[in-house]
Amino acid sequence: MKKSVFSVLAAMAICAGANAQEIKEDFKPNELNQPGQEYPMVNSQGYARFRINAPGAAEVKVSLGLGGQGGTTLKHLGDGIWEGTTAGPMDEGFHYYHVSIDGGIFNDPGTNNYYGSTRWESGIEIPAHDADFYAEKNVPHGNVQQVLFWSESTKQLRKAFVYTPAGYGDKKNQKVKYPVLYLQHGWGENEYAWSNQGHANLIMDNLIAEGKIKPFIIVMTYGMTNEGFRPGARPAARPAAQAAPAAPAAGQAPAARPARPAGGMSMMLNNGFETVLVDELVPYIDANFRTIADKKHRAMAGLSMGGMETHSITLARPEVFGSYGLLSGGTYSVEELEGRKVDYIFLSTGEKESPAQINAAVEALKAAGYNAEGHVSPGTAHEFLTWRRALYTMAQGLFK
Amino acid sequence: MKKSVFSVLAAMAICAGANAQEIKEDFKPNELNQPGQEYPMVNSQGYARFRINAPGAAEVKVSLGLGGQGGTTLKHLGDGIWEGTTAGPMDEGFHYYHVSIDGGIFNDPGTNNYYGSTRWESGIEIPAHDADFYAEKNVPHGNVQQVLFWSESTKQLRKAFVYTPAGYGDKKNQKVKYPVLYLQHGWGENEYAWSNQGHANLIMDNLIAEGKIKPFIIVMTYGMTNEGFRPGARPAARPAAQAAPAAPAAGQAPAARPARPAGGMSMMLNNGFETVLVDELVPYIDANFRTIADKKHRAMAGLSMGGMETHSITLARPEVFGSYGLLSGGTYSVEELEGRKVDYIFLSTGEKESPAQINAAVEALKAAGYNAEGHVSPGTAHEFLTWRRALYTMAQGLFK
Repeated sequence: MKKSVFSVLAAMAICAGANAQEIKEDFKPNELNQPGQEYPMVNSQGYARFRINAPGAAEVKVSLGLGGQGGTTLKHLGDGIWEGTTAGPMDEGFHYYHVSIDGGIFNDPGTNNYYGSTRWESGIEIPAHDADFYAEKNVPHGNVQQVLFWSESTKQLRKAFVYTPAGYGDKKNQKVKYPVLYLQHGWGENEYAWSNQGHANLIMDNLIAEGKIKPFIIVMTYGMTNEGFRPGARPAARPAAQAAPAAPAAGQAPAARPARPAGGMSMMLNNGFETVLVDELVPYIDANFRTIADKKHRAMAGLSMGGMETHSITLARPEVFGSYGLLSGGTYSVEELEGRKVDYIFLSTGEKESPAQINAAVEALKAAGYNAEGHVSPGTAHEFLTWRRALYTMAQGLFK
Repeated sequence: MKKSVFSVLAAMAICAGANAQEIKEDFKPNELNQPGQEYPMVNSQGYARFRINAPGAAEVKVSLGLGGQGGTTLKHLGDGIWEGTTAGPMDEGFHYYHVSIDGGIFNDPGTNNYYGSTRWESGIEIPAHDADFYAEKNVPHGNVQQVLFWSESTKQLRKAFVYTPAGYGDKKNQKVKYPVLYLQHGWGENEYAWSNQGHANLIMDNLIAEGKIKPFIIVMTYGMTNEGFRPGARPAARPAAQAAPAAPAAGQAPAARPARPAGGMSMMLNNGFETVLVDELVPYIDANFRTIADKKHRAMAGLSMGGMETHSITLARPEVFGSYGLLSGGTYSVEELEGRKVDYIFLSTGEKESPAQINAAVEALKAAGYNAEGHVSPGTAHEFLTWRRALYTMAQGLFK
């Protein structure tokens, strides 16, 4: 008798488990898909379903799987079509991935590409329950301006994106000046990340439209310290005055190779990015945009590696930035900040990263009298939804 | 004797032919490659060499070949590496392509992607002998601004890129106003094409730096009349007031499908783009940028399908645009323009397209008293080098 009871309980438990795992067939195209593409798809539970046309392939895998970890092996449906669904729901938000065809790495032709891990990867978005704060709405929108500035230290024409809030161009506002946040991407990403993956411009547009913050400018530039990995770069033709033997002459193939920039590398490994950002980009921005060009109205923040850059540059150049933000990018200790005047310090992380470390650091900074704020993104790891939420929170604490 | 003489002559001819076909081993990485990628490569003669890692594949092809036509079949070098070189030199300039792995279509992981034929394709650049006019130089650079504007006719948040010339942001220029060129992409392309493939911003920067033109603004927006093919679009969250059952609610997967926009399609097929451009975008630009908002200082031009759009819109709305440009996009007849006041008409084509037709149309317009100019791009077909050269020429004829 006992035995059968246990069997029944076991069976019930199994059924309960099975029910919990049941996949709802309400899949819709991933919102990042290329125009007219049905796959990849996402359902209301956060499962992702991939479909790849790979005739003749022996094995097709997608680098995404349960909770964004591991991968998903697709099955051949026939006629060269391979399909697979993640073993479980993915974390909410944006995920990078790629496809493996018998070991060859390609992007999914169904979706758009986003620069991460030093290559253009495929992107999929699991709609977040709180996606409204970065939704495209019929509110006044700021612009994201591509600027090209000459960097004398690297002898390169470099790119930055500058978010200017709605109204920046209005005739009536031509005397208005704005604070500036310098916002850095993570390792293997580039200056496109905060707009394309992070929706920084939409987060700002919505915060400003709701009256939650006063408008400010955001500057996003390429911060990888290895110049070899300057994404999307076309070799810069040096000005005649600085022409080197390696410089391209009209009609010849440009001599500069992305992987081996003449001169750039050694300088870059020697605090090169600090020089580009602080001594070249900041002056360019202050000269070409209506900024309040002082420490109190200039902040630096970054995610992951960009946080580490923020940490070292803000400590090395205390006269330049008044507010600091480390997004999944470490912490400041009270000792490091000894005797420094800092207006605002923001430290954040995903709940699946290191909340205890961040909370402890924030408490220590507060105890030492600093205006510090922490943020932990619920249910997310080292990915972009964590950083969208961090920017949303940090923006409301900056420049008070 | 004669026979042997002929043999010698024949042999000499063959050798001459062989010499002409000899491939110089001076291949360099394609200048559009992703960071750190060696392949695809291009040599000084314009041959392209591709290398793809596709273990287990039975056939690997690249859609580019001799003169940009046909394709190139790669050979297996071993270890899953496939390599192939075009059968001949390619035309100078930019070419779209993709890779076929046993019939499955993917992009080349080695190079960057460019939106063409309604998908993100791989891109390769055969350096042109006259590439200097769009080279990145240490001259003052204008900005390319992404603007998001609400389109009431399509109930969508739409994107445009606005080139503002160097100095637009300078404090001392805040009273200066500029003429505006509305510049359209071709079929299957999007609003990124004129900047990414066309280098419109660099062409303008260099022309202005050399004093060859007075600065003007260029506006580039998405002109495909099928809203289903709005590239890179994230479904627009409608304002609450306009929320439809199909609109996404917070936390749900966006309901809008790129291929089936709610409502948009029918309107788009009914002169939808004319409404978006003339009645929605032009007023937005005039309200948010320092434009000279009159017909004489407003031009419209486009390439290929964008030329056809320019042709129909300029004829339908003669009060809006003072100058017209059709780049590989047809011609205007004297009859069509009967009684119209047009400041400048530019018609262009590639030498491998229809020069006779363009030259005849220009002569007829001149004979009828119009200020018409023609341009034929030497040695090029229906591709972007043709249009870079056309913009370079047209820009010097506009707004005189």
